[in-house]
Amino acid sequence: MAQSDDPLEAYLAAHEAERLADYLAFLRIPCISTLAEHAPDMRRAAAFVAERMTAMGMEHVEVCQTEGHPVVYADWLHAPGRPTVLVYGHYDVQPVDPLEEWVKPPFDPRLENGRVYARGAADDKGQVHLHLAAVEAMLAVRGALPINLKYLIEGEEEHGSAHLDAWLAAERDRLAADLVVVSDTGFFDGNLPQITIGLRGLTYLQVDVLGPRLDLHSGQYGGTVRNPAEALAIILAGLHDAEGRVAVPGFYDDVLPLGDEERAETARLPFDERAYAIETGVSAFPGEAGYSVLERRGARPTLDVNGLWGGFQGEGSKTIIPASAHAKVSCRLVPDQDPERIFELMRTRILELAPSGARVEVTFLSGGRASLTPIDDPATRAAARAMEAVFGRPPLYAREGGSIPVVASFERILGLKSVLLGFANPDCQAHAPNESMRLDNYEGGIRTVMRLWDELGDLPR
Amino acid sequence: MAQSDDPLEAYLAAHEAERLADYLAFLRIPCISTLAEHAPDMRRAAAFVAERMTAMGMEHVEVCQTEGHPVVYADWLHAPGRPTVLVYGHYDVQPVDPLEEWVKPPFDPRLENGRVYARGAADDKGQVHLHLAAVEAMLAVRGALPINLKYLIEGEEEHGSAHLDAWLAAERDRLAADLVVVSDTGFFDGNLPQITIGLRGLTYLQVDVLGPRLDLHSGQYGGTVRNPAEALAIILAGLHDAEGRVAVPGFYDDVLPLGDEERAETARLPFDERAYAIETGVSAFPGEAGYSVLERRGARPTLDVNGLWGGFQGEGSKTIIPASAHAKVSCRLVPDQDPERIFELMRTRILELAPSGARVEVTFLSGGRASLTPIDDPATRAAARAMEAVFGRPPLYAREGGSIPVVASFERILGLKSVLLGFANPDCQAHAPNESMRLDNYEGGIRTVMRLWDELGDLPR
Repeated sequence: MAQSDDPLEAYLAAHEAERLADYLAFLRIPCISTLAEHAPDMRRAAAFVAERMTAMGMEHVEVCQTEGHPVVYADWLHAPGRPTVLVYGHYDVQPVDPLEEWVKPPFDPRLENGRVYARGAADDKGQVHLHLAAVEAMLAVRGALPINLKYLIEGEEEHGSAHLDAWLAAERDRLAADLVVVSDTGFFDGNLPQITIGLRGLTYLQVDVLGPRLDLHSGQYGGTVRNPAEALAIILAGLHDAEGRVAVPGFYDDVLPLGDEERAETARLPFDERAYAIETGVSAFPGEAGYSVLERRGARPTLDVNGLWGGFQGEGSKTIIPASAHAKVSCRLVPDQDPERIFELMRTRILELAPSGARVEVTFLSGGRASLTPIDDPATRAAARAMEAVFGRPPLYAREGGSIPVVASFERILGLKSVLLGFANPDCQAHAPNESMRLDNYEGGIRTVMRLWDELGDLPR
Repeated sequence: MAQSDDPLEAYLAAHEAERLADYLAFLRIPCISTLAEHAPDMRRAAAFVAERMTAMGMEHVEVCQTEGHPVVYADWLHAPGRPTVLVYGHYDVQPVDPLEEWVKPPFDPRLENGRVYARGAADDKGQVHLHLAAVEAMLAVRGALPINLKYLIEGEEEHGSAHLDAWLAAERDRLAADLVVVSDTGFFDGNLPQITIGLRGLTYLQVDVLGPRLDLHSGQYGGTVRNPAEALAIILAGLHDAEGRVAVPGFYDDVLPLGDEERAETARLPFDERAYAIETGVSAFPGEAGYSVLERRGARPTLDVNGLWGGFQGEGSKTIIPASAHAKVSCRLVPDQDPERIFELMRTRILELAPSGARVEVTFLSGGRASLTPIDDPATRAAARAMEAVFGRPPLYAREGGSIPVVASFERILGLKSVLLGFANPDCQAHAPNESMRLDNYEGGIRTVMRLWDELGDLPR
């Protein structure tokens, strides 16, 4: 981003160091929404966002209390006759364990090799911050925006957006808009610009297997009581069949079949198996029979064990039968699977798999529906033009394997379509140690957002 | 133990408070042998034992260094023409997790309802201490013992006695004896006196399933890579068949079949399924088809998952595919299974069960052979007489499900049979939270040891 006659570019260039310092300051707040002890950090992060919005000239800035962590709202509504865009992002971040695998502490951000490393650098604090930087520049240089703008920055995305639906329903009037822009996705492999046309849904649950009232000596009791860790293994092993299909009766009932056109387009997407092997560190990609790797990771429902624990986990030997064993299990869903119905099917199957002599409990933790957005929507087309102008090539259109449950909520509660315009580099390691955001993606994101607001301002309402 | 004309009883009565205080002081040392950070505590515990031995008049007291934690040796050899007995015990204790389930801290011993509560109260510091108390009284009152006595108190029993075999081989001459007395077992259900005639052996191993090089986002990667936690579940679920038999080819090859006589005697042992259900907290006792609960817990080999872990284990939801998953697995062995051969069979089976797309490593952690001691050995008979005189009823003879690998080592390396004379109450919760020793078992143990030394002193060499 060299010097430019464009006053927006000149402004961005003049404020580069200040912008980066502010981005890093935002990343220093350890706002992990799922851990109760971070509640004060959640409030600090929400206040940080609200202060920046106020300073740059947004109006009606409000840190809105919910039953959970607060939502930050702000608007700028001085473009009569122009479209109104609702921008969604989240200021909360994932937990950081395993902490020992971070090269530097996750909340001590650093810039290295053109990347910002920290928890939340990409998902999603970095993307929230680039939106604010774009609008700050536009308001500073032009004193006005080409569209009407509303911000909704929530604090529970990594906690299943537990209280957002209720808040959306209550704030329906204030949130009236023509469309939602969500920046919480990323580029395609090879860091190619991408617009996400589909998101998977989620059903997340916990399995608790309860056995003896306390850990038992495996010599004195081994062979006479059901071992909860083994019972858990039997349950988890029974959730897939030998062909990699999810072995839960009814699981696939509501899955919309992949159309021939989408299968053909997916087959055209660049996929470098060698690069994928290096990225993941594994050399074989087993999965559901009959579908390609790209189809499986975006357009097919899946089931994963996200964690498991029970009994002795230390150094050396401890000869016990654990009193209990536990697992986190989640399914990625596709249209038209219903998260609650899938939970019920899972629960039924898990209880059916549970061997005798162990008590099994299944608890719903979070869920969200999958969604699809059309390629030929005028707003999607505008986003594609903005992206091509900044990044020099037209975006790919892909289904994303991840879940942003609120996209379905916007459709259901507010009646709004979303454009999923994300800038994270595909090797950002969201949810894993050493998360990072490429600075060129961040800076390009700022320019894309500015261009998109101009493009949308020119569209008929 | 009221006042008595017996000078030994009078001595014990006069020193009761002092004895209990010393027992509790011993329990205060957190000597967990498997955790490296407790190495200084191991040295403190060994020094404690050595100081007591010196003070009571034992000779050649030595804290012997090994490659691991030290062995405490002492002897008293002034009974020419009388048998020499080697007493074995261990001063190390099990880890204490889950710490939150202890009603009081595990190394802050307290006396309540006639029991001493603390880690090691029964296994095995309490039993080491009662041996010392018995001999202290005999030497104080009589100035001499009726037998020649050697102590071998080790510090790695809960760590597979990793360095003891080498030490036994090196110290063969110093350890020459007629017999070993081991007090590291317990009474039968209902707190009935018991002499253990059989011990199970052990093979303890760790399974590590290694997948992606780091935790992956389950949305972006779910459905395309093998989930290590699921691979681990498949492996663990495959180690038993539907009839509760260990599904490892060759596992039962060397198992000596149970004789009709022993099966008949086992069937005569009192077994209260209701009490067992209350003790364990479970109501069903599934296990190997064709064998009773008592046979399964003492005379049949078993396989247990002692612990497992991997991925996210915190509060709430974290949508990852774990980079790895791990389990501790152990087998209880019976004569004539060989721990190393069983490890090889297990390893082969585990690698065969491992699904594609995951790397699996199997590591041997510890092992020991099973053993059987005859009921009609003169030393066993002497122990039975001593026990009956103190506890008022003849002991039961039972196979114990636990493992004391050194018993096999004494036979193999020193050529010595062991008498297994343990005093722990069956509800002592060894290896679990809130371990306890009944004070009447501890005090009765002191008297039984004194009587046994007198009984053995009268036997022909």
